[in-house]
Amino acid sequence: MRTYPEYLEELLDFLRIPSISTLTEHAQDLKSAADWVATRIRGADIQNVEVFSVDGGHPLVYAERLDNPGAPTVLMYGHYDVQPVDPVEEWDTPPFEPTLREGRIYARGSSDDKGQLATHLFALRDLSRVWGPRWPVNVKLIIEGEEESGGASIEKWALQNADRLAADCALISDTAFLKPGLPSMDYGLRGIAYAELEVQGPGRDLHSGLYGGGVLNPLSALARIIDRLLDLESGRILVPGFYDGVIPVSGLDRDQAARVPFDSGRFLEQSGSPALWGEQGYSVYERITARPSLDVNGLWGGFQGQGAKTVIPSRAGAKVSMRLVPDQDPDDLLRKLEDYVTDLAPEGVTVACRTIHKARGVLMDPSNPFMEAAAGALEEVFGKAPVFTRCGASIPISTIFHVNLGMPVLFMGFGLPDDGLHSPNEKMDISQFYGGIEAVKKLLGRLARFTAGRPIK
Amino acid sequence: MRTYPEYLEELLDFLRIPSISTLTEHAQDLKSAADWVATRIRGADIQNVEVFSVDGGHPLVYAERLDNPGAPTVLMYGHYDVQPVDPVEEWDTPPFEPTLREGRIYARGSSDDKGQLATHLFALRDLSRVWGPRWPVNVKLIIEGEEESGGASIEKWALQNADRLAADCALISDTAFLKPGLPSMDYGLRGIAYAELEVQGPGRDLHSGLYGGGVLNPLSALARIIDRLLDLESGRILVPGFYDGVIPVSGLDRDQAARVPFDSGRFLEQSGSPALWGEQGYSVYERITARPSLDVNGLWGGFQGQGAKTVIPSRAGAKVSMRLVPDQDPDDLLRKLEDYVTDLAPEGVTVACRTIHKARGVLMDPSNPFMEAAAGALEEVFGKAPVFTRCGASIPISTIFHVNLGMPVLFMGFGLPDDGLHSPNEKMDISQFYGGIEAVKKLLGRLARFTAGRPIK
Repeated sequence: MRTYPEYLEELLDFLRIPSISTLTEHAQDLKSAADWVATRIRGADIQNVEVFSVDGGHPLVYAERLDNPGAPTVLMYGHYDVQPVDPVEEWDTPPFEPTLREGRIYARGSSDDKGQLATHLFALRDLSRVWGPRWPVNVKLIIEGEEESGGASIEKWALQNADRLAADCALISDTAFLKPGLPSMDYGLRGIAYAELEVQGPGRDLHSGLYGGGVLNPLSALARIIDRLLDLESGRILVPGFYDGVIPVSGLDRDQAARVPFDSGRFLEQSGSPALWGEQGYSVYERITARPSLDVNGLWGGFQGQGAKTVIPSRAGAKVSMRLVPDQDPDDLLRKLEDYVTDLAPEGVTVACRTIHKARGVLMDPSNPFMEAAAGALEEVFGKAPVFTRCGASIPISTIFHVNLGMPVLFMGFGLPDDGLHSPNEKMDISQFYGGIEAVKKLLGRLARFTAGRPIK
Repeated sequence: MRTYPEYLEELLDFLRIPSISTLTEHAQDLKSAADWVATRIRGADIQNVEVFSVDGGHPLVYAERLDNPGAPTVLMYGHYDVQPVDPVEEWDTPPFEPTLREGRIYARGSSDDKGQLATHLFALRDLSRVWGPRWPVNVKLIIEGEEESGGASIEKWALQNADRLAADCALISDTAFLKPGLPSMDYGLRGIAYAELEVQGPGRDLHSGLYGGGVLNPLSALARIIDRLLDLESGRILVPGFYDGVIPVSGLDRDQAARVPFDSGRFLEQSGSPALWGEQGYSVYERITARPSLDVNGLWGGFQGQGAKTVIPSRAGAKVSMRLVPDQDPDDLLRKLEDYVTDLAPEGVTVACRTIHKARGVLMDPSNPFMEAAAGALEEVFGKAPVFTRCGASIPISTIFHVNLGMPVLFMGFGLPDDGLHSPNEKMDISQFYGGIEAVKKLLGRLARFTAGRPIK
């Protein structure tokens, strides 16, 4: 068996691969990262490994070892792709030159999700050395490379291969502790509906001296549309019908939330914002977990350089995403958004609204034996029972595992709140990485004691 | 004497210099363009030429030949810098590889203003060969390299050297005919007040899943601010006090406008916009010439790449410019803009407003002998008397010549309306270039018959 420091060295190799899935120029890096994963799976004595592409997308890695029809089956998921790195000048060390400082691994993807995915692979490798020729747990792995770019490949393939993926539970390590020493497990995640708006005005860029005052500026039109998406005073989203289907915050939610040591002052401090903001009538914690939200993720048009250019641009654009809670339907909301922005567009421009990606939210009953087994494993390793939480972020594949394939999803995340996901200087604590490997081993050990396949739907 | 085709060849060399004044990496190109100008002035037998920098800015070229105290003095102005070229992919031929097609010169700066400035230089060269040792007109030239980036150097230097620049009239060729065969002379230009807004929200880029709904997104705040600058229905600018000091459209304006063959349908077609737009109660022509306007020239923030990034950006920004008419004061309006956007900024962000550049508008009496001389020269060369117009664009130096130095400014422009200033595929018609050289020679010939220096203030 290798030692944990040796696993750390292997992880650093994984982190050196710039597998940014949203940028087409990194396609080869995605392939390299998929191969890295497949090699590690084989190293855990799982020989049935497939690496394949769906519709020309980044590779999926599927693997299985099904030794024991009477034993439970766990479906392990992770993603080897990472977010873009801009603004790259804000990184203290280069994002793809992983650096160890003060017990932390600084690199893009260290926490989201390469470092966490690696805990599964190294836990299996350790267990393969002790389990012998007939594993007491059936294992399936599905690892993707498009989580940060919409996950089209895995969604399509998983829905078409539901029988193949059938399992008693899914295991996803792509979330975080509430704070150091306090693990948590999500029983809910928000969904997402991500769209791009394009406003078209003049047929070409115009001189603002010669045309200013005579044509509608598409940037003014876009600002009007964006401004009418949100009421900044009440924090309410103004897309008509947006709140249809929102499951209200429940007594269970409030009971669980009471156990969460959420500090809104600390949240504010971590954000670096001048003030808190959000939907009136809800706590900060509810706003970012159990209530839907809408954000403009990008906005552009005209001259962005230094100095001045006196131009009326012909086009302007924006990225707009909505975070959804059950039972909001992303397709329905994207249609409502499109209808609304079309209505808002003033005469003098045309507007287009295009879907980038989408996923439903997830909400589960936290009292099932699989979640209890995972909770026990976390407590055993980290010394504290996890708190059950709702998470504001989206893991679209969990929608498929839970809503479409009908299995409980164990969100056993090993990140920490200050990991800086999607931000410059992303990091993972080495102790969380080591503890993660250990906890996955403990969970699989507990599942080995379950006597029947799929005892719980 | 060289022939006009030889002058065309010299102009193409001038156009090959990428003298973009807003981009610091082109500083050396600005120097080269200034040297090109200085060499041509010496070639016109004017030996008193200075090339110098003010506060490290792009070079100014000042030259004079004052042979005759009893003769009138003309101050000739032009600029050798050009606009940026983005979006460069929309150019049919590279912007700095001038190309002749169908009697036109395609290149950045061909019409604005290198091609027009060159008419002065080549006219003087021709005249120097016939005028002999004692010129019948005193000539001063001031050529700058910062017209497209705010003109700070020339403004400062001209105000400090008002006596040196004293002249009976100024000549500027940086405007356009109303259509082929119909020259025009501006008796008014709009001023400008150009500012940059920056909205600061979170201390760093945040994950929109983990923070969405809990902090105010600076892009939403910026959209609110931009949306409240203009009432899109009435076309009115909403900055409080914006219309204080606006000189109403006069009977003279309406009389002159009636002579202008302005076709709003053609204006719409040239803009490529889906519809006309503007301030209610005014004609399209008035909106773009005699009425002030406000435009967003650029807007940015967050993720602008392909696909999706689920980010709440820490910052967002915009370029906002106001086109002013007499007697609006740019400093006053920039203060009002700053106060207004500060008031509009919701809690949860801070906003900064920074001046980029500014100039007052110009409005002159078109019935003075210098304008009449210029009109006669244009009619002699192009076969048609010019129409007197107000122009919507800004030539900040004309403010100094007229408002500060007290001389009439002859806007004798040789461009055409479809030259594509500030746009891809900028061009100048070769016949306009040749006619321009001829018209400048005729104007100077007429001024030579004026008997006294500064007969008209």
